[in-house]
Parts: sequence; structure tokens; C-alpha cells
Amino acid sequence: MGELVERLRAGLPDGAVAVDPDVTAAYARDMAGFCEAGEPAVLVFPEDVEQVRFVLRTATELRVPVVPQGARTGLSGGANAVDGCILLSLTRMNRILSIDPVDRIAVVQPGVVNAELSRAAEAVGLSYPPDPSSWESCTIGGNIGTGAGGLCCVKYGVTAEYVLGLDVVLADGRLLRTGRRTAKGVAGYDLTRLLVGSEGTLGVVVEAALALRPAPGPQLVLAAEFDSVDAAGAAVCEVMAAGHTPSLMELMDATTVRAVNEMARMGLPESTRALLLVAFDGPDQRERLAEVEALCKAAGATGVVPAEDRAESELLLQARRLSLPALERLGTTMIDDVAVPRSALAAMLNGVAAIADRHGLTIGVVSHAGDGNTHPVVIFDAKDEDQTARARTSFDEIMALGLELGGTVTGEHGVGLLKREWLARELGPVGLELQRQIKAAFDPLGILNPGKML
Amino acid sequence: MGELVERLRAGLPDGAVAVDPDVTAAYARDMAGFCEAGEPAVLVFPEDVEQVRFVLRTATELRVPVVPQGARTGLSGGANAVDGCILLSLTRMNRILSIDPVDRIAVVQPGVVNAELSRAAEAVGLSYPPDPSSWESCTIGGNIGTGAGGLCCVKYGVTAEYVLGLDVVLADGRLLRTGRRTAKGVAGYDLTRLLVGSEGTLGVVVEAALALRPAPGPQLVLAAEFDSVDAAGAAVCEVMAAGHTPSLMELMDATTVRAVNEMARMGLPESTRALLLVAFDGPDQRERLAEVEALCKAAGATGVVPAEDRAESELLLQARRLSLPALERLGTTMIDDVAVPRSALAAMLNGVAAIADRHGLTIGVVSHAGDGNTHPVVIFDAKDEDQTARARTSFDEIMALGLELGGTVTGEHGVGLLKREWLARELGPVGLELQRQIKAAFDPLGILNPGKML
Repeated sequence: MGELVERLRAGLPDGAVAVDPDVTAAYARDMAGFCEAGEPAVLVFPEDVEQVRFVLRTATELRVPVVPQGARTGLSGGANAVDGCILLSLTRMNRILSIDPVDRIAVVQPGVVNAELSRAAEAVGLSYPPDPSSWESCTIGGNIGTGAGGLCCVKYGVTAEYVLGLDVVLADGRLLRTGRRTAKGVAGYDLTRLLVGSEGTLGVVVEAALALRPAPGPQLVLAAEFDSVDAAGAAVCEVMAAGHTPSLMELMDATTVRAVNEMARMGLPESTRALLLVAFDGPDQRERLAEVEALCKAAGATGVVPAEDRAESELLLQARRLSLPALERLGTTMIDDVAVPRSALAAMLNGVAAIADRHGLTIGVVSHAGDGNTHPVVIFDAKDEDQTARARTSFDEIMALGLELGGTVTGEHGVGLLKREWLARELGPVGLELQRQIKAAFDPLGILNPGKML
Repeated sequence: MGELVERLRAGLPDGAVAVDPDVTAAYARDMAGFCEAGEPAVLVFPEDVEQVRFVLRTATELRVPVVPQGARTGLSGGANAVDGCILLSLTRMNRILSIDPVDRIAVVQPGVVNAELSRAAEAVGLSYPPDPSSWESCTIGGNIGTGAGGLCCVKYGVTAEYVLGLDVVLADGRLLRTGRRTAKGVAGYDLTRLLVGSEGTLGVVVEAALALRPAPGPQLVLAAEFDSVDAAGAAVCEVMAAGHTPSLMELMDATTVRAVNEMARMGLPESTRALLLVAFDGPDQRERLAEVEALCKAAGATGVVPAEDRAESELLLQARRLSLPALERLGTTMIDDVAVPRSALAAMLNGVAAIADRHGLTIGVVSHAGDGNTHPVVIFDAKDEDQTARARTSFDEIMALGLELGGTVTGEHGVGLLKREWLARELGPVGLELQRQIKAAFDPLGILNPGKML
């Protein structure tokens, strides 16, 4: 590995190459559980496109694997090191290059933090909607790599819908420009979308043109409690069937509600089996909220609390925001990410409860109910081998259930290492073979994030 | 070709195989000008997925090219026959298989006419937004093949944004299922989007899962006239920069306005240099329209007419709807499809006027101003060789101008035969090579719509 480091040092600025094992080890993992991480050979922090090209050319010449990384907040092991790799951190390429309020397009480097872009857009009356839980620290490059979602998706969609064009360094160092810097365009195969969600296996994103939207007004939130998951699931279906598009529609199960109460003494109703939060941000939000209140009651809600103003709305949302931290206090957590048709939401939640019972485990479920994306959080004692094994089994059973219900094994977190075998099951042999051929077209030597996804 | 026809007849129902040259010639072209069409060997009308698979298997075994077709309303020659090909018409696979109002998903066969799906969605309070001009006759399969747009795109986006998953017959007859039947999902490379806009060069779409939206309310329209294209372009920029998202924002130039008046005696102001139509469909549409009226006046509008009701709105929209038929009365027309950044709209229109002057031609321009997508319509006498040559040159100069202004050579009509060389210019050598490798991965024998796009 002497030659690799020597060559990288010769072509990169001072301080851009780290080999101290304590340092490189600290960058060897993202936030996923149940995932292996290898020992990196070197960690580099390029500062511009030419430096990234230099790193990739060097990697190709020496046949060294490259693992691109952002803030490593991912939940599927996609950014984990493989043995002997170059860890390619894009965090120093963190400039917002332009924001155009007429074309509503931002051009950014990959290391820009999601929240920074959101705030810069807000400053000119615009918004960048995708809002993963980690938005205060995760990077746009990582969001693009995983196809990240968030709470906004029921109305505003996922990251993919905001990526108009990309500059990408290919495995051999060539620079590819995809897509467009216009609102519309259909010239050629859509390589932009092919790269979104490709987890660094096809190329390294070094610049992105992103669509922005006019800033929505503040949300008004309603909380509805139900004494059964079926009633809550029915309410979700009724709201969508009535033609509403909430700006947020989240469902917390009883385990989650109890955990939040324990942590934050929020006084949420302990008897509830499911707590539904629904929000609107449009000019008719009060009328919409009143209609949703009626629909929830008709579906059997045992209590409905509409917020009167922004402060009350924030308070209700706080319960949802605290869900993951509250569940994490109960033990080691594995967060799953199965999306099902909305109509199968109740079946999914009941199925997860049955899996938890069968394995004697606690599984809390928070869901982006509006788009059918559930996050069952399996809680276990990592020091207890048997419990850990049961947690792993239940995690897999949850994915199997999702596929059975017509869903997908990942709604927004990506495949990485964690769900590689499950991706193969979901795609089937024909799809898998085509995906492998596409990988080979982009990366014939297989040096880009090897072993991830496929 | 005896063996080909014999084998197709043996495997397809009576009446599904046509060889009469009068019949096959009638299917040999779409609606694009300036495009060659070859002589098809045979025309087939499969009725189900297995029959399509049979056709493709046969084509692969005999190494015969296959040209998939819908209603042949395309404007780029993408559906034109190549010599000795199988014309594969999907028009008999025209069933809407399901519409689910909870998941807001329609599952359809490719031969379903756009307007039929729109009406079926409306019947349950939903809408399928993409609305190309040919919506009363074009098919969903064709819309997916070209990535079709329409008037709705400024607010509701193009076809690609509504395609969740596809069933696709590959060149060798294998069946590929892509994407998902859920609102959300990021499992694997996005083959769905790769297929949208691929013009039948990667596979034959035999089923599509499409996202639907709640039906918007009726639009309220405003017409604003300007004495210069620059003032109209400035108004478009001001409206977008102020954070509005109209449900429609169309711009007609002086040539188009005169042509519409001549055809329909609509009494549009003959002195106008540009007529802007802006519409809103939300609950705050009257307030929005009043704000846009003020912005147009500030930008120098010489007259603004806001519609009071739905009937007046329809009347104003009629002017836009008649634009293409009105221009077609003036001679043979070639419709271009260049999208530029919104901020470059005025520069684009002025540049097109200069091109028209230089070549002594009439070029009317209608634009989806809200997304920067211009349709310059070059008018010429097809019997006049010199004029035809000038028309062809000006058509190309318009694309060159679009690229210079940071735009794309096709916003929504596709590449087909018409813009093949221009696609190569837009993509550059790296992009072109990757696109060719993707084509080779899907279609190693090159039998699917050969010579189109790439």
C-alpha cells in the first residue's frame, strides 16, 4: 500500500490524505447495525473535481477499491469501508455554488449539508423539501447516493424528484455530465435517475443541480388516537381516498408512544394503540384539517386534537421527532424501512406485532403513513447473543412480510450491505442481471464501492 | 421474409398479422417531418403479454428489427419503420387493469389512450396530469416511450414523474418487472426511469403502474399582452421569482396570435408582440391571479384580462389550443421542442425571430413558458426545395441556440430520428458512450428500434 499512499500524497493538498489507523477507523462505518466494515488503506478529502478525478484515476491504475462517503449517517452500511480501500470523503466539497430563484435551481457540491441548503433556499423564499431525520448533519451527496426521503414525502416526494442533473466522476476518472439545468428535458436515457440511489457503485457525484420549490407556509397539525391499528389504518385510507394530500401523515404505535412519554413526559395517551399525526400547509389547511378530523372520528378515533396554531402544531410534531431517540433509549436498535401500499399499512403493522410476539422482542413502529413507508425499530440487547439472533431474524421477517404485502424492502434508506440479499429477492433474476450489466458498463473493474447493493 | 411471417402467423391470433403493403405502409410513420421511414416486413397486433414475448423471441431468433408503436402521434420519427422490420403495434393492449383510489395508482396496458385514462381517473375524483396536445389519441405506451409532457408540466411535471413501475418485454422475450407498486421505494438502480423516454430501444412496455393525483379544481386564467418579447419574458421571471406555481403558463408570439385570429376570428390584439396566459387551480386562485396581474403590469403589459369564471377561462385557453392548427394552415410545419432556463426565454424567442429573418421564413413560437419549453414552428412550402432546405437549417439553428442558452434539444417530444445527431452533441462523448453501453446491455443484438435515439 506504500505506492498508493505515496501517489495520493503527491497529487493531493497537505492534510487531504490520512493513514493513521485511529483516524481511518473512525471513518470506516455509517450508522447501520448488523453490517461488517473492512480496514481502509487510506482516507482522502479532495477539495475539487480535479482532485476527485485524480483519486479515481489512481484507484483505477492500482486496482484499489473506492468507497465514497458523506456524513456517514446512512442506515444500510453503504458507506462502510472494504478492506484495503480508499475512503473518499466528499465533506470538504461543501459549497453551494448558486441558487437561482427564477429557475428555482440550486447547484451544489456533494458535501453540502442538507440543512444548510434548506436554509439557503429559505433565505430566498424557496425550499428544498427532502428532509431525512439526519437533515442537520447528512450531506446532499449522501442523500443522492441513498435516494433519501423524510417526513415531507407524502406531498413533496423523495430526493430523486429534485435531482435535475449531475456531474459525476466515473471509475476511470472521466467526468460525466448528466441531465440538464432546465425544468424540463427528455434527451437520452435518464442517467441522472440511474445514479440517484446507486450508493456510489456507479460513479462519484461531484456536483448536483437540484430543483427547489416555493417555500410552503407553516403546517397545521392534528393528532388522532385510535384503540386499534386497524382503525388507524382505515383512517389513513379514508383520508387519501377522500382526495387529501397532507403535508405530513405519520403513525406511531403503542410502543413508540410509551417510549416517548417515558423520555419526555409528553402526556400522550398511554391507552392508545396508534397515534396518527396529519398536517396541511396550504391556504385551505383549516378546512382540510376539519375534514380529516371528521374522517378520523368516523374511522373510530377515540380522541382527536387539532392544533390551533403553529406553536401547538410544533408540540404535536415533537412527539414524532422524539420517537427514534426515545426508542433508542430502550436498547440497541435496528431500524427497518419497508414501504407497502397504503391499503396494506394496517396489515403490515399487525404483522410486525405478531413477529415481535413470536420472538419475544420489543419492536416499535413509526411510519410515514401517507406513503406507506414503515420503520419498524427492533430493540434488543446487543450483549445477548440469542436476543441479537432473534432481532436479526425478525428484521428479515419484516422484509419478507413487506414483499408479501406488495411492498419493497427499502422505501428510503437504501440497500447497502444490509439488504443486499433482499434486493436480489425483490428484483428477481432478470432485473438483477440487468442491474449487474449496468454496473459493469459504468465500472468494469468493479472498484466502486464493491460488495454494496448488488 | 416468408419464414418470419409464417412463424408470426402460427403464434398469433387471426387478424393479428398484416402484410398487405398498403396496410403496413399506413403504419410506417409517426407525425414527424424531415424523417425517413423504411419498408416494414410485417405489422403485428399482439393482444397480451405472452404474444408480445412470442414476437420478440421470434425477432431475436431470426435477427429481425422490431419497431414498437402506439398511436404514432409522435413528432420525432421514433415510431417510423426501418426496412424489413416487424412493426409492433400495442394498440390492442388497451385495457385499464385497475385504479386504486387509496394508493392512487392505475395499472394499465400500453395501448390505453391518454384521454381514456384521464377520464377513468376523473370518475373516481383523481387525475392523470400529463396532457400532450395529442391526448385524445396518443397512448400511454407512447407517452412513456417519449417521456411526453403537456400544458400541465409547470405545476404537475412530465410523464416520467408518474411512472412507478413497468412490465417490460426485453429483446430476447424475457419479462422484466421494474420499480414498485407503492408510493415510495429505492431498491436498486432505477430501471423504470431508464425505460421512460427510451423510445422502444431498450424494451417493450406491456404494463405500467402509474401514480394518480387528486383532481385539481377548475383553472382560472389570465391573459396579458406585451409589446415586446423581453417584457413578456421578464413577466414570466417575475411571476416565478415571486414564488407562484401556476397550473399553466403559456406564451404565444405575434405570428401565432395572428394565425389564430385568421383561423378563428378570436379578436386577439393584433398589435401584441407576445400573449401570456397564466392559470391557477388552487383554493387561493383569485388572490394569486390578482398578484400575477400586478406583476404583469409592472413588467410592462399593455393589457391584462383576468377571466371571471370558468367559461371565460375556457375561451382564453382556446386561443392557445388553436395555435398549432392555426399555424398548420400557413404551410408545412416542423415543430421544434427546445427547453431553456426560464431566465433565457426572451433570449430564445428573440433568437428564433432573428433566425426566421435571416432565412426569410415564418416561424411561430408557442411556449410552455412556465418551464422554459419552447415550440418554434417553422413554416415552409414543402414543394419549394430551397425553402425546405432553409427550413431544415433554421430548425437546426434553433437547437444550437437552445444549447448555447444552457438548454436541451428536446423538452418533451423525444429524439427519434429527427434529433439523433443533436442528442450526441448534447450528451458529449462520455455520456454517449455510456448510453450506448446501456443499450448494448438491454439489446445486445441491436434489434429494438435500431437507428433511433443513439
